[in-house]
Amino acid sequence: MPFAPLQNDSFLRACLRQSTDHTPVWLMRQAGRYLPEYRATRARAGSFMGLATNTDYATEVTLQPLERYALDAAILFSDILTVPDAMGLGLSFALGEGPKFEKTVRTEADVAALAVPDMNRLRYVFDAVTSIRKALNGRVPLIGFSGSPWTLACYMVEGGGSDDYRAVKTLMYSRPDLMHRILTINADAVAAYLNAQIEAGAQAVMLFDSWGGVLADGKFQEFSLAYTKRVLSQLQREHGGATIPRIVFTKGGGLWLDDMKDMDCHALGLDWTVNLGRARAQVGEGANGKALQGNIDPNVLFAPPDRIEAEVAAVLESFGTPHLGAGAGPTHIFNLGHGISQHTPPEHVSVLVDAVHSHSRRLRATA
Amino acid sequence: MPFAPLQNDSFLRACLRQSTDHTPVWLMRQAGRYLPEYRATRARAGSFMGLATNTDYATEVTLQPLERYALDAAILFSDILTVPDAMGLGLSFALGEGPKFEKTVRTEADVAALAVPDMNRLRYVFDAVTSIRKALNGRVPLIGFSGSPWTLACYMVEGGGSDDYRAVKTLMYSRPDLMHRILTINADAVAAYLNAQIEAGAQAVMLFDSWGGVLADGKFQEFSLAYTKRVLSQLQREHGGATIPRIVFTKGGGLWLDDMKDMDCHALGLDWTVNLGRARAQVGEGANGKALQGNIDPNVLFAPPDRIEAEVAAVLESFGTPHLGAGAGPTHIFNLGHGISQHTPPEHVSVLVDAVHSHSRRLRATA
Repeated sequence: MPFAPLQNDSFLRACLRQSTDHTPVWLMRQAGRYLPEYRATRARAGSFMGLATNTDYATEVTLQPLERYALDAAILFSDILTVPDAMGLGLSFALGEGPKFEKTVRTEADVAALAVPDMNRLRYVFDAVTSIRKALNGRVPLIGFSGSPWTLACYMVEGGGSDDYRAVKTLMYSRPDLMHRILTINADAVAAYLNAQIEAGAQAVMLFDSWGGVLADGKFQEFSLAYTKRVLSQLQREHGGATIPRIVFTKGGGLWLDDMKDMDCHALGLDWTVNLGRARAQVGEGANGKALQGNIDPNVLFAPPDRIEAEVAAVLESFGTPHLGAGAGPTHIFNLGHGISQHTPPEHVSVLVDAVHSHSRRLRATA
Repeated sequence: MPFAPLQNDSFLRACLRQSTDHTPVWLMRQAGRYLPEYRATRARAGSFMGLATNTDYATEVTLQPLERYALDAAILFSDILTVPDAMGLGLSFALGEGPKFEKTVRTEADVAALAVPDMNRLRYVFDAVTSIRKALNGRVPLIGFSGSPWTLACYMVEGGGSDDYRAVKTLMYSRPDLMHRILTINADAVAAYLNAQIEAGAQAVMLFDSWGGVLADGKFQEFSLAYTKRVLSQLQREHGGATIPRIVFTKGGGLWLDDMKDMDCHALGLDWTVNLGRARAQVGEGANGKALQGNIDPNVLFAPPDRIEAEVAAVLESFGTPHLGAGAGPTHIFNLGHGISQHTPPEHVSVLVDAVHSHSRRLRATA
């Protein structure tokens, strides 16, 4: 594929624990409702799925935040629930509400009917990846993504979001055999899905285990982490001669960093409850260390500019000076600890992104 | 006060890290909506606050779970938000919905108007404590409680529950001075409130930091933990010659156990994400160790009896054999990791309570 050469490789280098002259930054859900231009495109598309399934619209909204901010990566505009939708569960989004599935997966018969979907049903995603990659024209790398097997299972069993995860946990505690069956299918589907995104042009891939943190100790390892590992073991290592970095983000997973040490991925996403310095000491150093991605509280973006700058500095300093020499060492990719709020003032995002760049350059200069 | 002598002191002994012949168990929100007899009393009372402010009703519902289950402690039936209500914010509960305040605390003027309330406005709580203590007649000890300063502040600023804590975090990040002022007042109010509960007959007190876990690392220590400590420093140590154990429960606080080590309390409540064995090694051993309270996932109660028994055994075994000799050592108080769900089948609670007693006796016998 004749994609343009990459002009800003700071994100990919940091994923691979190589030195960079600044700390790269991107934001989870950076293409989204807080941007008026996004809301305008969505209005034209008619619905969220109308937006996500249209290559031109998906390309347009993916690039919108890059026009405003000096971000170091783009992320495919899509949803974590495309895979269960392709399994035939019928995904929809009412305006202002969370995702809903027409069908849920709760019984032995529901589970028996479940299978890895034909990847052709997800062709619209892969087309979007290729289209976005072309439109980026080498500006920054493109991240592909998927929900983790456990997180997909939560939505598939609950039929949508949940406060208490009662349905999915009832199934897990009552019929662990059925839950393992769902998770095996999900893992194999997610691996095929991410490999197809890599084929289509994704330069890094990220697994969102948004609901891993709701599990009890022991159950997280058995029902979430084991299946994230199953996905990772099936992913393509390289494409077109380049290593494809693999990032795993577990919201609320800070207690389990020791369990994540031996995961076959390059970077770990962290939420704001985690101390970056401690996480670096735990999993960031040594030959098999992970790059760390995160982790400012998205609510910082509601504070005035000088407070945003102070909080950005605090997060960068809690990680400490990243690796500066040749070879591999501890690196940090700046991000929020969770998706950006739809209520965020867009001008505050500039303050954050610019503060990450300038303060991280300062830190390197004084190291 | 001529209260009857205590017949079952296993809970108090375990709080003080003294040996017991079984692991004591009680359940957060054990008097509540999952019990049909509770729903009947609430219907008679007309509203939640009608129930909580009436001494006879509060006594009746506090004792209801003890009629059904072999629980080792009773907990005052009340709400964590009585203190801000007494501050004049106007608490109400619509049926099936969360708490709402008429007034919020968001501006400089709102904060200036805030003060430690006259404890006479909370007389109904202290009357309930005395009435319940009498009605218990020495059967099991009575736990008093309050929300933590931070958790109260969340509700006071948000005006009710929240998904994203946007209002309270916006205030915290924008005007930390105002937030510190609110928290100082809350801490002093909570200390007076708990001391009055102790005077009225509470034999242990618990602070619920239900929302401490939503804070970023660094902010938790500054805006939640510091004010929990401020409460603890003001609490009465003893009453009527008996030590009053102090328990602190921080939902989502497992990452910060090292920071909680030096808190002036006897026991730490833990949610289900925490590994009890690891927590015991971290904060449960040594001369200044804490008793640990928790931490089974409340959703386990939706599984069939044999699965509940297996999960109870796993939690007990993850703590390991408690201290068995004289003096003080590591102890465990069994509980849920969060309040019991209103959808819980009441007969499953018997299975859990009985499994805790029988399995913990077995563990001691084979130690």
